Order: sequence, then structure tokens, then C-alpha cells
Amino acid sequence: MTDTNLSAVLYKVQHLRLVDRPIPEPKQGEVQISMRTVGICGSDVHYWHSGAIGHFVVKAPMLLGHECAGVVSKVGEGVTNLKEGDRVAIEPGVPCRQCELCKDGRYNLCPDVFFLATPPDSGALARYHTHAADFVFKLPDNVSFEEGSMIEPLSVGLHACRRAGVKLGGRVMVCGAGPIGLCAMLCAKAMGAAGVCMTDIDPKRLEFARKVGATSTVLVDTKDVEEVAAKVRVALGGAPDFSIEASGAQFCVELGVVTTKTGGTFVVVGHGPTHVQIPIVNTVAREIAIKGSFRYVNTWPAAIAMISSGKINVKPLVTHRFQLEETMDAFNTAKSGVGVKVMINCERQ
Amino acid sequence: MTDTNLSAVLYKVQHLRLVDRPIPEPKQGEVQISMRTVGICGSDVHYWHSGAIGHFVVKAPMLLGHECAGVVSKVGEGVTNLKEGDRVAIEPGVPCRQCELCKDGRYNLCPDVFFLATPPDSGALARYHTHAADFVFKLPDNVSFEEGSMIEPLSVGLHACRRAGVKLGGRVMVCGAGPIGLCAMLCAKAMGAAGVCMTDIDPKRLEFARKVGATSTVLVDTKDVEEVAAKVRVALGGAPDFSIEASGAQFCVELGVVTTKTGGTFVVVGHGPTHVQIPIVNTVAREIAIKGSFRYVNTWPAAIAMISSGKINVKPLVTHRFQLEETMDAFNTAKSGVGVKVMINCERQ
Amino acid sequence: MTDTNLSAVLYKVQHLRLVDRPIPEPKQGEVQISMRTVGICGSDVHYWHSGAIGHFVVKAPMLLGHECAGVVSKVGEGVTNLKEGDRVAIEPGVPCRQCELCKDGRYNLCPDVFFLATPPDSGALARYHTHAADFVFKLPDNVSFEEGSMIEPLSVGLHACRRAGVKLGGRVMVCGAGPIGLCAMLCAKAMGAAGVCMTDIDPKRLEFARKVGATSTVLVDTKDVEEVAAKVRVALGGAPDFSIEASGAQFCVELGVVTTKTGGTFVVVGHGPTHVQIPIVNTVAREIAIKGSFRYVNTWPAAIAMISSGKINVKPLVTHRFQLEETMDAFNTAKSGVGVKVMINCERQ
Amino acid sequence: MTDTNLSAVLYKVQHLRLVDRPIPEPKQGEVQISMRTVGICGSDVHYWHSGAIGHFVVKAPMLLGHECAGVVSKVGEGVTNLKEGDRVAIEPGVPCRQCELCKDGRYNLCPDVFFLATPPDSGALARYHTHAADFVFKLPDNVSFEEGSMIEPLSVGLHACRRAGVKLGGRVMVCGAGPIGLCAMLCAKAMGAAGVCMTDIDPKRLEFARKVGATSTVLVDTKDVEEVAAKVRVALGGAPDFSIEASGAQFCVELGVVTTKTGGTFVVVGHGPTHVQIPIVNTVAREIAIKGSFRYVNTWPAAIAMISSGKINVKPLVTHRFQLEETMDAFNTAKSGVGVKVMINCERQ
Repeated sequence: MTDTNLSAVLYKVQHLRLVDRPIPEPKQGEVQISMRTVGICGSDVHYWHSGAIGHFVVKAPMLLGHECAGVVSKVGEGVTNLKEGDRVAIEPGVPCRQCELCKDGRYNLCPDVFFLATPPDSGALARYHTHAADFVFKLPDNVSFEEGSMIEPLSVGLHACRRAGVKLGGRVMVCGAGPIGLCAMLCAKAMGAAGVCMTDIDPKRLEFARKVGATSTVLVDTKDVEEVAAKVRVALGGAPDFSIEASGAQFCVELGVVTTKTGGTFVVVGHGPTHVQIPIVNTVAREIAIKGSFRYVNTWPAAIAMISSGKINVKPLVTHRFQLEETMDAFNTAKSGVGVKVMINCERQ
Repeated sequence: MTDTNLSAVLYKVQHLRLVDRPIPEPKQGEVQISMRTVGICGSDVHYWHSGAIGHFVVKAPMLLGHECAGVVSKVGEGVTNLKEGDRVAIEPGVPCRQCELCKDGRYNLCPDVFFLATPPDSGALARYHTHAADFVFKLPDNVSFEEGSMIEPLSVGLHACRRAGVKLGGRVMVCGAGPIGLCAMLCAKAMGAAGVCMTDIDPKRLEFARKVGATSTVLVDTKDVEEVAAKVRVALGGAPDFSIEASGAQFCVELGVVTTKTGGTFVVVGHGPTHVQIPIVNTVAREIAIKGSFRYVNTWPAAIAMISSGKINVKPLVTHRFQLEETMDAFNTAKSGVGVKVMINCERQ
Repeated sequence: MTDTNLSAVLYKVQHLRLVDRPIPEPKQGEVQISMRTVGICGSDVHYWHSGAIGHFVVKAPMLLGHECAGVVSKVGEGVTNLKEGDRVAIEPGVPCRQCELCKDGRYNLCPDVFFLATPPDSGALARYHTHAADFVFKLPDNVSFEEGSMIEPLSVGLHACRRAGVKLGGRVMVCGAGPIGLCAMLCAKAMGAAGVCMTDIDPKRLEFARKVGATSTVLVDTKDVEEVAAKVRVALGGAPDFSIEASGAQFCVELGVVTTKTGGTFVVVGHGPTHVQIPIVNTVAREIAIKGSFRYVNTWPAAIAMISSGKINVKPLVTHRFQLEETMDAFNTAKSGVGVKVMINCERQ
Repeated sequence: MTDTNLSAVLYKVQHLRLVDRPIPEPKQGEVQISMRTVGICGSDVHYWHSGAIGHFVVKAPMLLGHECAGVVSKVGEGVTNLKEGDRVAIEPGVPCRQCELCKDGRYNLCPDVFFLATPPDSGALARYHTHAADFVFKLPDNVSFEEGSMIEPLSVGLHACRRAGVKLGGRVMVCGAGPIGLCAMLCAKAMGAAGVCMTDIDPKRLEFARKVGATSTVLVDTKDVEEVAAKVRVALGGAPDFSIEASGAQFCVELGVVTTKTGGTFVVVGHGPTHVQIPIVNTVAREIAIKGSFRYVNTWPAAIAMISSGKINVKPLVTHRFQLEETMDAFNTAKSGVGVKVMINCERQ
């Protein structure tokens, strides 16, 4: 196979293949990026294996991959913020810029957003990719490409923490110790949380969580919400002011409402069943705010600043590495659930 | 029966009786109030007929009534904000003033609050009542006692609208056209809502709602949430930015999430079943904030200003009037569901 | 003179002339508008007579006018929100959509904004004008073109009230009873202010202010800030929770800080001298927040909803009317200071 | 001299003496504290040497000292949150708990607050002191008494950062590298600031600031605001999103407005001249928010959590130590300006 622009294309459910494609040219306001690293997200695995997430259904061939960093290789007309050779991270969603939500600073909710690797929009797991220049951010010299790729999941965690309004000295519970939960934990700590307790059903994940920064963990090994809530309160020295659900489990939605301190905020970022039960009288009488959190908005500059200044360390989250040519191995590894983040190196060796 | 201080005492479930009691003396920081009007709340009826609301259980004789206005008849030591003869409205909850929530301006969530007519705390449906002077507010001359009593349900609606963050030009849906729903509607309009659409299962209530200010109404005569949501959007000229659930129905919780505009806020104030189903994927992907709203905090001054300035008119909500001696008739009327607010006049004739 | 597209062009300071120009064609994403009404703003008069406002200097011929309404006469490629014949109002600033401030919902602060009649950007006082379609808003049938033009100054007042955070039941002081002050007063009332007290040095302006809705007024006829502050507190029944300075006078900046209630917010929207004195110890010890307010952001939809629903009435503010051919008379009238808003009808008779 | 309860009493300006006094008994709701450490604040020195700060004038003998920690030695009636032997820190202000500001969670602005060592209220620099139990906070074992005393100045910095709304990834400028400025810097970092640049006129203070955590410093050695602003922007890699003025200098007020990023917040906590000049056109056109910050509200629990978890280290700020018997030496040292925080040990040796 020639390798002009080797690309990982999902043709249809379970048909992921590396194919060569022409190198895309940057249009007005775009840059062309020579990709360096692309992380594999749970959604990539899901599209590959199930062909759909909710109403997003794979109907035509598309590239996967939306956790990306690389080097600017060509600059389109009108681009002033970047130049050839710049090391960059990519924010995968490019909104319409014209709707009410875009104008109101909530472009993550734009109904007309283009979002990498979300059908019908194609992704960026390839040698080259073009992207709107103002959604491409220059990386400082001391931030690696892998860290640049990690900004995407970190942004999901950061946005959830912003939605929660995590405050200095606050106690935080994070349910689910996968990549998003871990990123939320790292952000909560950087925002001044005095303690972050993580919960999960897998003791190994909790061990990893403690190693990378969780101040305490509680294993969910019962169906009794009150029992887990009590353990979390002990672990944190009090009820959490803020809770973040990143597991997608019904149990954790109930846990979040019950455990969160009176007057506190419970943010749900995880996706699970379409409907869940919530203890509504508890929610009302204790004025819990239950907030959905979707993707992110204006997180790249803050995330880059935090990584560059050493305040957030995402490096330990990258546990497996592959070359673009080994994409199938990478996806199989991601699917197996070992490790935390699988990273693909897109540079031609 | 003598009538030193005729009082409506609930001895146990379904045993409500008028009895004479000594006139209470105001302690340090308290005032004694010669009661004029006390409105009957749904909770009063509930305690009378069922003996409990949630974990609040009537275990000892207690007075009912917490929607009160009167005239200061005696002033305790240290009171400087009121004097004998002042016409006043009473805020029924007196918090501990010392806990974290009190100090943070959220005293409605104080776990040690004294709250009129909420077991084990006794109410104020009597000739005389004493109360902490800083939770007693002077009424301007142009505000009647009945309006003073109406400040209590109005405050529930106002607090819900504050929790929602109703904004000028916003569209608002209010589910349930009982007293709380109607009060929320009045407040939403006063806060600048361009339109308020009310929903209910009873066409007569909706007719009343339109008469007192709802800009549109939608009858809930189906179990299809999407069908009702569509009607609400048409009625408002778009999806509601803010929704308030004041019916206690499971249907309306789902309706609230589905109908609220992407990025909007849905406040639940109504009490119904302990658990309800919510469409969580919808909540997450559209970043709906679901917020509980409990009682009120710092609402009396604002409510008095709005009634006095004529910007909110609660008068039409008082539909039935009784004398204290007719308390049983008043409660039977309230229980029958006719009208909106039943008011008891406590002045000795 | 031919009249293909009669336009009011400011060639240089004090050289304002009507000239004929070609009709502009709408580009991608734009609409062409057959102008109906354009209001004259103080800044238009200022550019005409002084040639500059701050660092905005008239260096090349430019049209004046940025308070505009009209009828869509042609639709550019890609426009979906409007069609020929739509009656519309124009938001004069079109931001870059790409900078940090635009993405954060604060596009009024975009350093690369195009803004009508602000050098070097030309205005819209002509028969025809083209504009980015997403900054052009459809008017309901019951909103007139003059009301459509008034949305611009109303937006300045609305944005100031939003910056202030005017709340239901609040007391508001507005300094300066010109068009912006009056619009701020109308918005404050619509947001639930229980009372709005306006101050000015001109008793006739205050009389007009009371006629169109100010609940009280205080004449500034002294240099003693405390004396005026005391009168405002009496007029409002207490210190204002929110104050808005729309006069540009040093006196009113000090007045704003001193008069605003402890913990309250004082918004400055008026432009006067580059530097003013503020009582900083008072500001610190009473935690006053002094906030600048510049133009507006996301105000047209709310303003249209409020005018259409009858909750805000801007009609009485239009006091003088001229035809486009009478532009010089219109500007001389505006400059003379009589009346409030001078409106020019741009429709060919 | 006997030493029942040795106390540092300021009789009148410049007459500070150690005298013996009876041990105060705790009233209802109070605890008696055996004092361990009391830090000297600039205000203590000021009352001693000048007899007044603004309208707070020393008219009768009063104790100095309000930065205190100790051990509960007796418990008044009704106290449940503390017991004898508890190691505690004291929040010096006890508000009225009844006014509008107290009920709204802004008790720092209560006009009837009792505040240690602020005339006419006496301080706590003595062997024993009694205080309202709910403004006394238990210290974890790993927090020392000196750290407990440091919570007071830390709280001033924390409240200023909260008023500023410091956010993760933000850039912060702090003017003035005295104890308050240093505490604000520590809090800003703990709240997620990517960089904090401190300014001062004294290079030694800046050296100290860098040693305890400032990420950069700029020496103010010119009267040219723009020159300093430019250096700060370079040091931070961009304009500060948040600025905090803790020097009391007119220069720094202008610096704060000019340097803060468009749309940002500038908090003034320092006290200097009663009036200062601000660049108001800059403030308005760039929508800067200038906010006063006064004392603190609800900071002790968060501060304790941060110190205990090791996220904020206040230890290096204590540079000088004295015994209660050496109070005059301690005050002379504090007045001389050497070091940062002078701490007095009140335990009988």
C-alpha cells in the first residue's frame, strides 16, 4: 500500500481498515496538520464495534480519532494565529459560530457543530488532517504531543468540574475511574479541592486512581446506596460538596444525589441507559442541582497552561502506545479494557 | 368555650379542634402578633388528613397554619425593627443562624430550622402568636393582611424562579396550576419573562391561570410527553429557557427535561413520589440543569416591594374566606379542591 | 441628484452630505436590506461635529447611522434564517467569531468587531445596506420599524442592567435621563425592579422620565454628593441595590459609589472624561462592585420579545421624525438637544 | 505583676501595656480559649501608633490582636461543636445574624458585627479569651497553632480571590507583596491559577515572594503605568485575567485597571488614600469589573482543609516569634517592617 496519507477508515460496523488517501489541502482559515499522536476514545471503539452511539449512526465511511496533536504543515489563507512548524493540539469540534448557543459562549451545544469522528463527520486518525485554525492551539515546548492529545479527555473532565463549580477547599466525589473520571479528578484537585474520592467497581482501577492523585477511593461492591454513601463521607471527612458521575451506571446517579451535600451540585457526564431513576424528594428537599455536562467549551488554553505549568500531570494516564500501522492492535487493546489511554503515533517512521 | 387565644390544634391525624390556650409572651428578640389572616396550605390539609409528610410525622398536638399576617401586639426585649401596632407578615421558618448553610445565605436548608406547622414545630392558626422579630416584616399601608399571608406561597414561587434564574425576555413553562404554580408564574412575569405557559390536567385551573396572567396554557390530556412538549413550544414561540415543575407528577418531570431548551434550567418544586424517572441522556447531551427548590430564602422584602408597587397582584388568588371559628369549614373547603387559596380571618369579631 | 441608493456620508469633520451610491450586493451569509428607519445616536452627532470619539477617528468618508430597521430586499448565498420581504432589525456589530472573547459569549469586547458608523467602519444611513444575516433579526408583525431601530439603544440599557444583575424587588438608581438612561430604566423595571429613581441636571428631562416610567426622580442641583444620595434613598425607600451611570459626569461616578447599597453593584455605561476620582475606601469597605458596560451582547431576541409582548414600550422615546432627504435637519435637531430620539425614515417616498 | 490573664491593652495612642486581668467566663454559646498564638496585623500596629483607622478610633482601653489560635479551656452552655481540649482557630468577627446582609451570606458586611481589636471592640492578645463557639473552628492534628493564626490573613487573601473568581488556568497579578498579597498569591495558585505575578516597590519582598510561590515578579521602579503593565504581561505570558490590589497605592489602582485583560476582574483589598483616580473610559470600553473586597466570609473551613491537606503552606510566612511577655518587642519588630508575620506565643511558659 502506498502511504501518501495513511488513514484509519471505518467503512461500516466492525470494518476498520488502514487505507491511503490524498493529503487534504487547507481551505481559507484552516491549517493542515501533520499528525503526531491520536488517542483512542471509548466512542471510537464503540463506533467501530457497534456502529452507533445513540442517534449518531455510521452510514458512510469515516475516519476515527479525535484526540489529536501534531505539527502545522501548511497554512491556509487568512490564518494569522499559526505558522508552519508550530506544534499544536486540536479541539475536535468546530461549531457554526452563528446560532444563539455559539454567540452565548456555549458552542459545545451548537446543533450544527462539526465534530471529529462523530457520524457523519470524519475523524483525524491519519498522517494528515486539516482543521479550522482557531480550533488549533499552539503547544509550549515543554508539552509533548501525547500530552497534547490528552487535552481532549482532560477537557471533558475540566468542563464537568466547571459545571460543578468546584471550589477551593471543597470535597469532591467522582464516580467511575476511567479516563474521564481520572481527568475530572485531576482538574478538581487543580481547582482547589481539598479531597477527591473516586468510586468504581474495579479495585485495580481504584489502585491506579490513588497512584495518579485520588486522595481516597471507595469500592462499589454492594447495591446499597446508603452504604457506599457512608463510606464516601468517611473517606472525605464529610459529604462531597460536588459530585461528578463518569461511569454511566444507574447506581451512581442515585449515589450522586444521595451523597452530595445539602445544597450541592451533582454533574453527570457519563452516558449509560437513556432513562434513570432519581430520588426526587431528596433532590428537592436538599436543593441538589443535577447538571448534565457535554463535551467542553473554551478548555484548551486553560488545559495547556495547567499542563505546561506542571499543575496537572496527564502523562501517567497514557498506558499503551502503537504506531499508525498497528491501528488494529491499538483498537483491540483499547477494547480489551487494559490500561487507561491507548495512544497511536501517526508520524511516518 | 372561652376565647383568650382560640387556636386550631391538630391532636392527631384527622383530629383538628379549636381550643382555647393562654396567650404566649414574647421572649427576648420576639414579638407577639395579634393574627389577622392565615392561609391554608396543602401541607396543612395533608397533616390533618394523613398525619405526615415524608419523615415529618405528627406525634404531639400542634397548631396548623404558616401563611400569616397580623398586627404586632407586644414587643419583646431587644427588638428594634418593630413596634406595637405595626402591620406585619410572618416568615414561618426561623433557622439556627449558626450552621454552615445559615452563614452561607441558604438558611432554607438549615437542618435545625424551626418551621411553623411542621412537626414537631407548632403553627400559628390562632388569635395570638409569638415569633422571632427579624422574621417578621412590616407591611406598607397599601398591602392588605390577605396579601401579607399570600407572601408565603408567593415566596415559594419566587424562590423557584430565582433558582431557575428567569431572565428578561425568557420563555417559561410552569407545570401545575395550583397556588405554587400560579405564584411562580406571577414571579416569572415580574422578572421579565416574555411568556409563561402553564400546563395542568384540569381545564378549569388553566382557565383561571389565564385569567390571572398566564400568557398561554396547555392541557395535559395525553401520556405522550413529546406531544405536550410540542404544544408548549408552539404556545411559547419556542422551547422554554426555564421550566418549573409544581405539580408533583412523574409525567411533568420527564416533560420538564424534554421541553426545556438546550442549555436551560428545570426547577422542581413539587413533591410527589420519592423516585422518578428522568431521561438522563437527554439531560447530559443537552446540558439541562435539574434543580431542586425548597421553601425560600430572603424573599419577604422583595415580595412586599413587588406587591406594594403593584407589579405583582396576588389578590385574585384568594378565592374563599372564613372566620377562625369556621376553621373546620375552611379545611373542608381546602380539601375539596375548589378555588385556589382559602383564607382564615383570625381577628375576634 | 440621482437616487439609486441615497446615503448620508460623513467626508470629514462637519462635512456630512447626502450622495448617491451604488446598491451593495449581499455576499455569502449576508442580506441586503431596504432601510426603513435609522435613529440618530449621540455618537453620530459627535463624529459629525468633532470627527472622533476617543481613539476612533474619522479618516476616510463613512456613512453614519447604526440604529436600523428595514425590509430584506435580497438574500445572499447560504442564508437560511431570513427571506426577501422579512421585516427586520439590525444588530450593528459583527464580531470576528474566532477570538477568545467571541467564543466565550462576550463578542461585544471582540477587538476585531465590525461596527456600523464607527471609524473605520461605515454606517447604514442609506436606502440600502448589506449585513451579516445572523446579526439581522426578524420583527414580529406588531413591532414597528421605529421600535426596531430603538432596539439598539434599548440594548445598551439592557446590557447595563444585565451587568448590574438587576433583581426582582430591587431598587435601582439611573444617573442621566438621556436615551440610554431611559432605556436602562425601562429594562430595570421589566426585570422586576420595585422602583427606579432617575437623576439629571435638567428638570425637563426628569419630567419626561417620570412620564415614560421612572418611579421617582432627583434633580442634581448641588455639588454635594451626600445631599443627592440622601434624596435618592428617600425617593427609593432605601439605598439602591443597583446603580447605573449613563451621564458621563464625574459627579455621578462618585454618587454611584456612595449611594449604592453595601454589597451592591454600580455599572458605568456613560462616557465622559478619561479619568475620574472614586472613593476607594468606601468601595472596599462596603464591597461595591464597579463594572464597565460596553455596547451589548445577545440582546436583540430578548428586546424583540419584550417589545412584542408589550412589556417594554419604547414608542414614547421617539420625539422627532425626518425623511432621509432631510438628514441635515435631523442632525441639527439631534445636536440641539431637544427631544429624546430623532428618527430618520429611509424609505423612498 | 500577677499573671492570671496577662493581656496586651492599648490604653490610648502609643500606650500599649501588659496588664493582668480576670479570666473571662464563657456565656451561653461561647467557649473560653487558652490562647496559644496571636499574629500581629498591620492594623494592630496602626491602632497602637496612630490610634485610629478611618472612622475606627480608639476611645477606651482595648486589647489588640485578632489572628488567634488556642485550646478550648471551658465550654459555655449550649455549645455542641466543641469540647475542652480542642485545638482551635478563631474567626475574629461575630456578626449580628439578623440583618439582611447576614441572612444573605455576606456577614462580613454586617453593620453590627463584633470584630476583635477594632474599636470599640476589644481583641484577644491575652492568656484567655471567650468567643462565640460557632466562630471557633477545630484544627486537625497536623495543623499547628501558628498555622491556625495564619488563617486570618489567609482568609483575607482567599476572600479577595473568591471576589475575583480566580479560575483554573487563569493568569493573576497581585500588587503588593506584604502578608495579604502573599496570602492572595497562595490562594490564587491553589484555585488553579497557571501563573501569579506579584509587583512591589521593594526587591527584597519580591525575592521572598518568589521563594514562597510567586511564579514571577515585577519591580515597580517607575511612575509609568504602561511600562509596568507591559512587564507584567510578559511575565505572565499574557494580560492577567484577574488582578488583586493589596498595596494601598494609587499607582496600583491605575495599574490594575490598565493591566487586567479585557472583560476581567480587578479586586481591591488594600487600603490607602480615601479617593483614587481610575481610568474610567478604559474600565467601560473593556468592561473591567472593579470590586472591593472586605475581610472574609465562610473561609475558615476551606482554609483549614487546604492547610491540612498540604495544598497551601503558610509556614514560611511566619518570620519572627515572641513570648506574650515580649509583646513590646514584638510590636516594635512588626513596626520596623522586617520580615513578614510576627507571631506572639501566649502560652504561659
